[in-house]
Amino acid sequence: MKLVTPLIRKGGVSTALVMPNLKPTISNTDQALAYKAELQALAPEVQFLMTLYLNPDLTPAEIEKAAKAGVVGVKSYPRGVTTNSEGGIEDYRIYYPVFEAMQKHNMILNLHGEIPSDPDNDICVLNAEERFLSHLKQLHTDFPTLRIVLEHATTKAAVEAVKSLGDTVGCTITVHHLQLIVDDWAGQCHHFCKPVAKYPHDRAALRQVIKDGHPRFFLGTDSAPHPRHLKENASSCAGVFTGSHVLPYLATILESFGALDRLQSFACENGRRFYQLGERSATAGQVTLQRTEFTVPEELEYVDDEGAERAIVPFMAGKKLTWSFA
Amino acid sequence: MKLVTPLIRKGGVSTALVMPNLKPTISNTDQALAYKAELQALAPEVQFLMTLYLNPDLTPAEIEKAAKAGVVGVKSYPRGVTTNSEGGIEDYRIYYPVFEAMQKHNMILNLHGEIPSDPDNDICVLNAEERFLSHLKQLHTDFPTLRIVLEHATTKAAVEAVKSLGDTVGCTITVHHLQLIVDDWAGQCHHFCKPVAKYPHDRAALRQVIKDGHPRFFLGTDSAPHPRHLKENASSCAGVFTGSHVLPYLATILESFGALDRLQSFACENGRRFYQLGERSATAGQVTLQRTEFTVPEELEYVDDEGAERAIVPFMAGKKLTWSFA
Repeated sequence: MKLVTPLIRKGGVSTALVMPNLKPTISNTDQALAYKAELQALAPEVQFLMTLYLNPDLTPAEIEKAAKAGVVGVKSYPRGVTTNSEGGIEDYRIYYPVFEAMQKHNMILNLHGEIPSDPDNDICVLNAEERFLSHLKQLHTDFPTLRIVLEHATTKAAVEAVKSLGDTVGCTITVHHLQLIVDDWAGQCHHFCKPVAKYPHDRAALRQVIKDGHPRFFLGTDSAPHPRHLKENASSCAGVFTGSHVLPYLATILESFGALDRLQSFACENGRRFYQLGERSATAGQVTLQRTEFTVPEELEYVDDEGAERAIVPFMAGKKLTWSFA
Repeated sequence: MKLVTPLIRKGGVSTALVMPNLKPTISNTDQALAYKAELQALAPEVQFLMTLYLNPDLTPAEIEKAAKAGVVGVKSYPRGVTTNSEGGIEDYRIYYPVFEAMQKHNMILNLHGEIPSDPDNDICVLNAEERFLSHLKQLHTDFPTLRIVLEHATTKAAVEAVKSLGDTVGCTITVHHLQLIVDDWAGQCHHFCKPVAKYPHDRAALRQVIKDGHPRFFLGTDSAPHPRHLKENASSCAGVFTGSHVLPYLATILESFGALDRLQSFACENGRRFYQLGERSATAGQVTLQRTEFTVPEELEYVDDEGAERAIVPFMAGKKLTWSFA
């Protein structure tokens, strides 16, 4: 936290939706506010939007409290699917009173859209997102005015599902899923994340919906800082770290498939509109990029809480980007 | 080589088909015979069947020489697909005179059945094998009496293709592909191999064809010994090492899906018949397994040629097997 929080602004980002899958999870308003204060102290210039971890102890009363305290969303993790998701959901129906309260208080439901792997039913990391989409559709049908965000979509099926739904359903796409396919994480632990990157045709669909300028698709980095020794390991932590250079990555990658003109709407406007954050002032948090080659650092060094020298390997470490900050 | 060659017999194996993808590749008869002599010195009791690396310098005359010298096969690697395959094939038609000679001299064509990834055509490690199958069918059509082995099949599509073809087409299945699915190599470098393990329904097809006792499917371990430091790495070497405990693994895994009764035909008989090796004598190379729990070693230590202490992590390291050698 101490390393990466100050990097948010350096990456060009002024508004961050903070995920609640910590140990322990951020499960109620008080925890979210305490966490927000810690983050805010490390990066006073960033707007932190807080979320709660969807869990059986959440009540409609707690939702009302959270909404009044400015917590913007509740994040749902299917059980066991990603980092610290052991306490996640198995069935959404028990949460319907919570969703009812969220809809009433204008909170957002953020979905990690995968179902747990189940080999007996042919469910694995490759089709876990596609198999989740029926849940997304059902939730939207049952709570038509609840704003829902399908987070870090990775498949053509997800793109098509979101497009087919109403204006209360948005979708984030990460920087790295615009770049990676399955081949890139086969034996390459620094590209391993959840959801995993999929087929070339899936990546093509993610790229195309941005090229099309669809207003309900926007940047969500899902930037996860795991130290090198927990990545280059027999059992690698899931996550790609893009937080330190979000906008140079994004400009470079968007330009590579002819979508540089969508940079501002995808990264800065569509998300703000969906989150009802209001117009940004012309200068607040503004950054300028220039077409100057920039080499991503090989690693970001830090000293951990036990005093050990550690490093995070950022996405595309040692690779050249075609855009950098002016 | 010095570490793993003596382990072949310890794993319960008395006949090994030796792959030619070394650095440099085993490209002609003389190299194959020299390599065989090295292996034979390390494991005098093992029958080594040698292969050549399919390459543009192979001639029908060299094929005749190889066949007369007892080389049994020629292995084809698509360019860039797996370890040391940079020199592999791009188009089979230039090899038709070589295949003609192989057919005449009763040699076997061993196929690494994947085409190179090509994102522009939606080809990636997940569909590279399925997209190869048209080549297998074409080769079988054009050389109907040439014996062809599709090596280390990983997909339902491959199983169905081989079943649909004639008696001159066989297929190997590894120990580890009977156990692993894509989830198992997502972030777990010791399970990363080429071809990658696929969907649960693919694994189910591999298991079912063994349960069915199909006579043209047999064990081929594709056992690849990469040291730990080259596996637990930003860019992991592809391969799973099963050589040290082949039969205990296989008995344990076959039993897990109700196919223990196929152990002998799958591991010992179908392959010998396809390779025309003749009946094994009742006792030569015979091993006996017993249902006694056995824990796979965490690692196999060795000192490399530069004097460094290294280790290979065997498949299912530290896990319990239900079968061991008597």
